[in-house]
Amino acid sequence: MDRAEYDKIHAYMLEMMGDSAHDAMHIYRVLHNSLKIAESHPEADKDILTAACLLHDIGRQSQFRDASICHAEEGGRLAYEFLGSLGIDEKRRAHIRDCIITHRFRTDRQPATIEAKILFDCDKLDVTGAIGIARTLFYKGHTGEPLYTLDEEGRVQNSGDAHMPESFFKEYHYKLIKIYGRFYTKEAREIGEKRKAIFTAYYEALLDEVCVDYGVLLICEGGKDVR
Amino acid sequence: MDRAEYDKIHAYMLEMMGDSAHDAMHIYRVLHNSLKIAESHPEADKDILTAACLLHDIGRQSQFRDASICHAEEGGRLAYEFLGSLGIDEKRRAHIRDCIITHRFRTDRQPATIEAKILFDCDKLDVTGAIGIARTLFYKGHTGEPLYTLDEEGRVQNSGDAHMPESFFKEYHYKLIKIYGRFYTKEAREIGEKRKAIFTAYYEALLDEVCVDYGVLLICEGGKDVR
Repeated sequence: MDRAEYDKIHAYMLEMMGDSAHDAMHIYRVLHNSLKIAESHPEADKDILTAACLLHDIGRQSQFRDASICHAEEGGRLAYEFLGSLGIDEKRRAHIRDCIITHRFRTDRQPATIEAKILFDCDKLDVTGAIGIARTLFYKGHTGEPLYTLDEEGRVQNSGDAHMPESFFKEYHYKLIKIYGRFYTKEAREIGEKRKAIFTAYYEALLDEVCVDYGVLLICEGGKDVR
Repeated sequence: MDRAEYDKIHAYMLEMMGDSAHDAMHIYRVLHNSLKIAESHPEADKDILTAACLLHDIGRQSQFRDASICHAEEGGRLAYEFLGSLGIDEKRRAHIRDCIITHRFRTDRQPATIEAKILFDCDKLDVTGAIGIARTLFYKGHTGEPLYTLDEEGRVQNSGDAHMPESFFKEYHYKLIKIYGRFYTKEAREIGEKRKAIFTAYYEALLDEVCVDYGVLLICEGGKDVR
């Protein structure tokens, strides 16, 4: 891809980005790691990969406005349209669209091509290690969710059970800890493994620091809200 | 303090709490750690300390609405008024007010009594270790600040220089790393020291993960916003 085309796609990406967890820095990290992993996969088309990385989260703002919208589906649709306006041929923009549609963790559609697999992996790498902790906390702070919740006896709820109220601790068990086993490429799996140590060490330390005796502190006449 | 009085102060605190970083769980942790440290300071008045801990952040919402308001000053004023309505005598509520006024890190007024020093220390303990990282990230996500910023060559800015744009990395250097040397009590200093290892290990890992080569990625015709 020449610089002029890159700049146009890059400028469109900047226009579409929003919250602190899914900002342009996230895009740059995904793009950087994707191009690095692509070095071990010479069959990967770097232009397809670059466009898919740059545009993979452009549907985020739509999903923020309306939670029923899937940002991956919406992003794929928007990218397909936008790339058409740049004169990119139908086959290539369909390929890019499909990479974007299948990059999401919570979806039934699996990445089918090497470019889609690398994008998926590098997007997930950004939810591993210290950066995964940081971005998840940013996101939870943005949406106003608590760090953890307490059960009726005042114990910190340390699980990812689907029926539990949303919190960082729930997300840790429900999503974050599972990502390390979900990579498609060997290279991403290795980076993830290296990052896992600080990820679990951080969570264990956090748990240790916050597990105080809340039981005696929170009882309040008629007070149900323990946040 | 009897349960009825505790419950009234506790209920008022719940009414006044807001964002995820300064929620009731923060209050409970501060109260729990304060009462624990007070065991080594038999001269500390546990009722004064309990009321000061419960009410120390009730001015937060006013500061959110109007950044020129100091939440410590405002919280002290509100607490003094509220405790008057409970029939607590002037001397005790002035003591509690002064603990609240001097709990803030960025202030000229220093805690003068043992209760004020313990409150200050335990409030600061909640900005150390893993919990300090988590709460700061929550807060930055809430206010929409970035994790880090880049200089003009695309290098991650890793300092706390006052002229730098706000970010988590700036806050780490500008405030978080300095807290460990600011405790009044030996007990808090020791807890802080223990927590420092995960605090620095986390930051080093984060830095390592995000310091990719942004220079080649972010140049964009007319594009100044690199978030």
